[in-house]
Amino acid sequence: MIGVFDSGVGGLTAVSAFDRLLPQCDIVYFGDTARVPYGTKSKAVIEKYAFQDCRFMLSEGVKAILAACGTVSSNCLDELKEALEVPVTGVVEPAAKKAYETAARSNRTIAVLGTSATVRSGAYEREIRKYGDGTEIISIACPLFVSLVENGRVGADDEIANIAVREYLAPIIPISPSAVILGCTHYPLLSEVIAKYLPESALINASEEAVRSLCSLVGEDDSVCGRSGARRFYVSDDPEGFAESGRAFLGHDISDRVNYVNIEEF
Amino acid sequence: MIGVFDSGVGGLTAVSAFDRLLPQCDIVYFGDTARVPYGTKSKAVIEKYAFQDCRFMLSEGVKAILAACGTVSSNCLDELKEALEVPVTGVVEPAAKKAYETAARSNRTIAVLGTSATVRSGAYEREIRKYGDGTEIISIACPLFVSLVENGRVGADDEIANIAVREYLAPIIPISPSAVILGCTHYPLLSEVIAKYLPESALINASEEAVRSLCSLVGEDDSVCGRSGARRFYVSDDPEGFAESGRAFLGHDISDRVNYVNIEEF
Repeated sequence: MIGVFDSGVGGLTAVSAFDRLLPQCDIVYFGDTARVPYGTKSKAVIEKYAFQDCRFMLSEGVKAILAACGTVSSNCLDELKEALEVPVTGVVEPAAKKAYETAARSNRTIAVLGTSATVRSGAYEREIRKYGDGTEIISIACPLFVSLVENGRVGADDEIANIAVREYLAPIIPISPSAVILGCTHYPLLSEVIAKYLPESALINASEEAVRSLCSLVGEDDSVCGRSGARRFYVSDDPEGFAESGRAFLGHDISDRVNYVNIEEF
Repeated sequence: MIGVFDSGVGGLTAVSAFDRLLPQCDIVYFGDTARVPYGTKSKAVIEKYAFQDCRFMLSEGVKAILAACGTVSSNCLDELKEALEVPVTGVVEPAAKKAYETAARSNRTIAVLGTSATVRSGAYEREIRKYGDGTEIISIACPLFVSLVENGRVGADDEIANIAVREYLAPIIPISPSAVILGCTHYPLLSEVIAKYLPESALINASEEAVRSLCSLVGEDDSVCGRSGARRFYVSDDPEGFAESGRAFLGHDISDRVNYVNIEEF
């Protein structure tokens, strides 16, 4: 059984990737909907919350963890890896690798879009630099994107979404980077709008790359992944609201499988 | 000493009103910046957080409390009033009264702008109805406004702010209500943009009306208010970030008076 967690509903983009890539895997998902968003919080608070989230999933018996949260992955993944007894994968390393490979075949320019905390951490840049120099990396904090996604403002013709995307992306639209990392789990839902302004760039879905990476690590091991294809969802606030958003992310109803958990007890 | 609390920085609009109306009053402010926003959370979670916030301020010795948070005021003020041993004022009743009086002198139409939780609660409508029928009340949830304010998107010429305001206010722009309640403590910072589209309407700052109401209740009583004009600020996340935003709300530097508190211990 694999644990997938995020500050809210965004990490469901990773569950959606599991549905496509490893549907038989058993998944426990935790969304910290009472304390969302993490992206505006300090490193100390992000780390504290991430450990609580992981302790809860371990109590449910997960054998590997996917931090499907750009903010956690870029602020405290090493701390989680060191302290926890199961393998932990984040969304930064796999997306950084994919972006480097994509850029190496083209104009060697990579853009990283993320929350303020993700951009401030510099985690994507550090990870990309490990593969070598010679790429230009431009990081852009897009603090309004999470609100837009959570309010359903993601349509290709949505006026506010278009202005926000055009404005945040203004520094990179003339450059048209080879690869654009969607470094927050919410951002793939804005892909259609982003692609309008960057039609030549490869948009890299960090959740999907992370799931691919985890699958190559433990995907063959039934004792880690399980094989009944079960999906259980836990949230720290109203299960109903989560189930409603879940439909937009997963394309099907999960309302009979969402439960509340008091995360502060962990 | 009076305790003022909010989910984040928004309640500083109330502190700013104290600075104008009762500057000699001693104030302890708590901003729950680690768990902001409240407006998207369930009633149960909002109530739990509000009680923790109040218990902290009581431990600091406050003699009266202002819930400078539209979401708390509209979801669990009665519970706080009943359980706590000091007077508790919210932002709903005073603004509702002011709106009713203003509307009665004009076209008898009131608009309420608030977070999703505030609008869902129906608290402003209930409170206005207590003064009598004969007013038309239109409530509009403006879920993007808090993000806009927290990202500094409040200028009269800000393109995103203008579109968001024009869109949310579309149902009331042709009506031009007598009174428009800014039912979330963040919203007064958007006054300039809102006024562009509703030039004939009286914009009612709920924080300011609440401070007026509290002053008329305890403003003469030094044993409740204190008289040294002290201002102490506590937050559940990074004090630095709060101090930075604080300058925009208060117009002066407070960085030497902001401290961290672990709110989950209360």
